[in-house]
Amino acid sequence: MMPERDLQYLAELAAQLRVDSVRAAAAAGSGHPTSSMSAADLMAVLFACHLRYDFTDPHHPANDHLIFSKGHASPLLYSLYKAAGVVDDEELLSFRKRGSRLEGHPTPRLPWVDVATGSLGQGLPIGVGVAMAGRLERLPYRVWVLCGDSELAEGSIWEAAEHAGDEGLANLTAIVDVNRLGQRGPTRHGWDTGAYARRFGAFGWHTIEIDGHDPGQIDFALSDACNTRRRPTVILAKTRKGEGVLEVENREGAHGKALKDPDKAVEELGGPRNVRVDVRTPDEAPAPYRFEGGKLELPRYVVGESVATRTAYGEALAALGAARGDVVALDGEVADSTKTETFGEAFPERFFEMYIAEQQLVAAAVGLQVRGWKPYAATFAAFLTRAHDFIRMAGVSRASIRLVGSHAGVAIGEDGPSQMGLEDLAMMRAVHGSTVLYPCDANQAAALIAEMADADGVSYLRTTRGSTPVIYEPGERFPIGGSRVLRHSPGDRVTVVAAGVTVHEALAAADELAAEGIPVGVIDLYSVKPVDAAALSEAATTTGNLITVEDHRLEGGLGDAVMDAVSELGPRMVKLGVTGLPGSATPEEQLADARIDRRAIVAAVKRLL
Amino acid sequence: MMPERDLQYLAELAAQLRVDSVRAAAAAGSGHPTSSMSAADLMAVLFACHLRYDFTDPHHPANDHLIFSKGHASPLLYSLYKAAGVVDDEELLSFRKRGSRLEGHPTPRLPWVDVATGSLGQGLPIGVGVAMAGRLERLPYRVWVLCGDSELAEGSIWEAAEHAGDEGLANLTAIVDVNRLGQRGPTRHGWDTGAYARRFGAFGWHTIEIDGHDPGQIDFALSDACNTRRRPTVILAKTRKGEGVLEVENREGAHGKALKDPDKAVEELGGPRNVRVDVRTPDEAPAPYRFEGGKLELPRYVVGESVATRTAYGEALAALGAARGDVVALDGEVADSTKTETFGEAFPERFFEMYIAEQQLVAAAVGLQVRGWKPYAATFAAFLTRAHDFIRMAGVSRASIRLVGSHAGVAIGEDGPSQMGLEDLAMMRAVHGSTVLYPCDANQAAALIAEMADADGVSYLRTTRGSTPVIYEPGERFPIGGSRVLRHSPGDRVTVVAAGVTVHEALAAADELAAEGIPVGVIDLYSVKPVDAAALSEAATTTGNLITVEDHRLEGGLGDAVMDAVSELGPRMVKLGVTGLPGSATPEEQLADARIDRRAIVAAVKRLL
Repeated sequence: MMPERDLQYLAELAAQLRVDSVRAAAAAGSGHPTSSMSAADLMAVLFACHLRYDFTDPHHPANDHLIFSKGHASPLLYSLYKAAGVVDDEELLSFRKRGSRLEGHPTPRLPWVDVATGSLGQGLPIGVGVAMAGRLERLPYRVWVLCGDSELAEGSIWEAAEHAGDEGLANLTAIVDVNRLGQRGPTRHGWDTGAYARRFGAFGWHTIEIDGHDPGQIDFALSDACNTRRRPTVILAKTRKGEGVLEVENREGAHGKALKDPDKAVEELGGPRNVRVDVRTPDEAPAPYRFEGGKLELPRYVVGESVATRTAYGEALAALGAARGDVVALDGEVADSTKTETFGEAFPERFFEMYIAEQQLVAAAVGLQVRGWKPYAATFAAFLTRAHDFIRMAGVSRASIRLVGSHAGVAIGEDGPSQMGLEDLAMMRAVHGSTVLYPCDANQAAALIAEMADADGVSYLRTTRGSTPVIYEPGERFPIGGSRVLRHSPGDRVTVVAAGVTVHEALAAADELAAEGIPVGVIDLYSVKPVDAAALSEAATTTGNLITVEDHRLEGGLGDAVMDAVSELGPRMVKLGVTGLPGSATPEEQLADARIDRRAIVAAVKRLL
Repeated sequence: MMPERDLQYLAELAAQLRVDSVRAAAAAGSGHPTSSMSAADLMAVLFACHLRYDFTDPHHPANDHLIFSKGHASPLLYSLYKAAGVVDDEELLSFRKRGSRLEGHPTPRLPWVDVATGSLGQGLPIGVGVAMAGRLERLPYRVWVLCGDSELAEGSIWEAAEHAGDEGLANLTAIVDVNRLGQRGPTRHGWDTGAYARRFGAFGWHTIEIDGHDPGQIDFALSDACNTRRRPTVILAKTRKGEGVLEVENREGAHGKALKDPDKAVEELGGPRNVRVDVRTPDEAPAPYRFEGGKLELPRYVVGESVATRTAYGEALAALGAARGDVVALDGEVADSTKTETFGEAFPERFFEMYIAEQQLVAAAVGLQVRGWKPYAATFAAFLTRAHDFIRMAGVSRASIRLVGSHAGVAIGEDGPSQMGLEDLAMMRAVHGSTVLYPCDANQAAALIAEMADADGVSYLRTTRGSTPVIYEPGERFPIGGSRVLRHSPGDRVTVVAAGVTVHEALAAADELAAEGIPVGVIDLYSVKPVDAAALSEAATTTGNLITVEDHRLEGGLGDAVMDAVSELGPRMVKLGVTGLPGSATPEEQLADARIDRRAIVAAVKRLL
């Protein structure tokens, strides 16, 4: 039994969290106070009794991690920061105002926030990634994730449940605020915490069902979570949305808006308070375990050989792994195809099999980078679309993750359209702060994979299934944002801009045209974002005619990137790309049918001139 | 007990399916024979004893539906078609060749295939949609979905499990080929069918664990599935990958390739056969239930009023529902925000709450359109990214679905970047055969929502959270692919191209500039794909200066669409769009901070001139 004095303190703290949630939303005129009020007791007990966090040192390696997967409960999170003494009342009331760090949904603009949330179902899979990091670096920190009940409908939650349950991530605790009400009405299972317990239990979790407004039960459950070995714990807490204020308590239609009469609500909650919570700092812990590094020795491919860029990915990643102890790799159960297996064989401790669960694949990468690891996550380019929302949110989090999509384009051949990455460049270019790379040969691929290690934000590299000729010497540098002029003469009538497989088609076309007396320039635009605007502008100015050719749909890819860079110069431009729906055929037939092969380029040049 | 004669027949049929799978892959030199061989007995018994399908009439409304969620087992599917007499041996051996209908993964180019598969984890959620259609149209057909064990790692499978279990879709049966081996190695749970049974059981399914090579057990399980009421059934069948051929049987490293010695394998399997399977045609069934329709009376909004386009969506959809019995609506638990609730209140039988599970939301729409329904599925534009892979595959399936994304752009205001659809235009434009619409006022939105009903393929409409002025008269027509010139004079120095919220900013800017003596044209490009190339070209030719302005990232959206349409004319172009990372602020502040408001347009015009 908890002593009466503690119970009283926790009740006061929780009341203050509710009051401040109401006040913050009232000041903003919007926000989610009722979703905050339901979880106030849960978080009061967590902060007062279980969280280990040094607010003066957010980067302390032994700090626990708290992720609000239900990011819309941001008023509660900010009220907790106020109670912890790191946000003052004035800042609290700046909630949702222009320039405030206290955004509608939490983002890492706040030093205590690891990742942006607000797209539901993401906090738990990312928490899985942070928990994986904890095991990797052998630190005793715990990962606490506050989930809503509505978001348990997201498949990504069950990808997380499967991975954490199967891996036995005992350092991970999900606290589910089962307040029964979603945005538009009752959730599927209402207050049936047993329904959720059966599901999590089937996935191997330790489950605890409690009254989420009873501090004693909460305290017991959090202790139980800390004491549970070999299994993650989920605390299923029955709560009432808007708890404490009659106007909104357990009522439909009160989601996502400020209370009508906030003053009365504050009064009903007992008025403002000035309770402080002293969050315990973590115990002394050993330094995070790090793997040893060495000198970087990238693989070297001989010019004229034929090597797939995906092969170079595997070998370069393994070389990077040998050079840097912070590099880790994740696989979506296709490591034999993406060639991540080369790394996996060399560094099994730093290789993570995420199985066919691309959302969890990307979320784990986001979680690992929270703790400073350099994750590379790879699957087929086509299947990265499965994780689009996670990639988008990684951009909002300014997370530094490295994604690699193999089997790009129609060039894969017989497998057909379901396996062809034809939309990945468009998807990745539109992500905030992203870098998009598309090498055409193995040495270039290796160099770019090494470049990515220190790139900020979301970086993406696209690889090709089939072998392509090595055209660059080993050791050449390919900075992000650069390009390579592969054919150029003063008399060039057209410049062909290509990347990846189409570089080789462009070179063949240029040779054929040169033989016919039509000099044509060729640029290898391996950096699709950022693009080398200077090189493109020079080409646009000198020849006045540009042809872009890409193994990707016409919308949003390389052609659009080039057009964007040179439009002010007004060159004549032709974009070649995939427009129809491919079927099965050999790679050569596919390139021909999509009209992005050498013959199509020759024809386009002649048409343009 | 099954009579010996039947057992013998089924063994012969299954052996033939294995032989033909091996032969097809051998002829192609690639493909997935071993993944086909593990499921041969399962499918032999299904075809011979339980499937009800009229191969002479693939559109027979009472036909069962069979979806190969493990689409890579296409050799098995095509061998079944051969055994059923609808594909001959010559065509079987055209597998994966250019021009063949027998693609690497099944697509609806074959009349018996409902949807393209090959991206794992999609067949079951789509099957849920087909089963929902069966209930809606009151037909007794069954939906059979063949799943792999690897794909059970996908979250989308558990979205499907939750929806089907909770809805009690007893007409749906999942048959899981638990062959223990994924692409790169053992699956997470190997042959532990109990692990899967616990999970499906927790989600409310009837579960059966069997030996997937024992025809008697298979027959019993399929009968049990047919006889089970109020619950979907999952048959967890323990099988061996490559069953029947020692070289590959239950061995790692044999995924996704033709057998090394196909002749020997065929011999080992007892040689080629010529077994036919007579699939029973469905019993007489009533005509599909259809809801009544009437005259279309779209809502009418008065010019000068302020109405949100999302409000118009709800009201127009309800009007469409009254006019057409085939229109159905799906919600991702945000119907109060997207305004799908207006339809839901009017037509509860045709309104489907899919909760916060966007992959299942889109998959259900795809499944419903298989049976001729006209689904409209809506959530926040930002959260449609969650279903990107399903939308991509819907394009490959040539499925006609209608998606509506609300809360587009920074104009949502205080909620912040996690809730802002800023990548949706790029995502939707790159989908094969897609239509992308973005209305600026309520009457236009209503008209476009009606246009979408008969659009082929994936169509997308973007709505705005806040109210915008009504500028068009009710009843005006807005064809897909069109645009509207809103300001035009012979002396125009620049044409501003906008859509949605930015149309109103462009009009305000044009008025301000006109007052300063700078005539500026304005085009409302409500159809972002296809674009009105003629109107844009005319503007590009007459003024020579274009400014595009969009509440979307600069990559892949309206600006790129315009550039693509006019690049050959070489106008000078400036693209305005969102480049930074917004925080919280009012809608007006957001538009100003992103530099896509009237002031930014005025400044851009002056800079350009």
